[in-house]
Amino acid sequence: MGIIENINKLFDHRIRLGIMSILMVNDDADFNRLKELLDVTDGNLASHIKALENAEYILVEKQFIDRKPNTRYSATKLGKMEFKKHIDALEKLIRK
Amino acid sequence: MGIIENINKLFDHRIRLGIMSILMVNDDADFNRLKELLDVTDGNLASHIKALENAEYILVEKQFIDRKPNTRYSATKLGKMEFKKHIDALEKLIRK
Repeated sequence: MGIIENINKLFDHRIRLGIMSILMVNDDADFNRLKELLDVTDGNLASHIKALENAEYILVEKQFIDRKPNTRYSATKLGKMEFKKHIDALEKLIRK
Repeated sequence: MGIIENINKLFDHRIRLGIMSILMVNDDADFNRLKELLDVTDGNLASHIKALENAEYILVEKQFIDRKPNTRYSATKLGKMEFKKHIDALEKLIRK
């Protein structure tokens, strides 16, 4: 068992760390808000959202606002739990 | 400028985080020691070492011990500086 054992491979990307960090402190955020905060391209953001969605770390809700489609993202209980574990593991690793 | 701006892409991998963490607190380490601490395959470790070496974040020194080849790795000044910046950026991001 190596010292990086508890570091979650799914969070091995700064865009994913960014998405999760935002969703840990905000109930939800829409695509444009994430894009603006992270300063990334649509395709890049979409692919990392998809990876986190597939892992059930984030929840995607599609709705209409003034008849315009709007997609909101929120962290699931599993996602929050795994992210906390990841951060704890990172902190332990760094302080070794 | 996004909130993940100062997170270094080169450290976007837990094996690289692991290598740097080890070399921040040890003057140097050889290949087998890194492999043992990180519990990774030779090929995997070698490719991440190469990436850090190309960035001049780590220094590779080849020597002979009892006529056997031995390769030691250490963090460069640049590598230590960049790793500290990366950790600071991670901490800021997480605490947002």
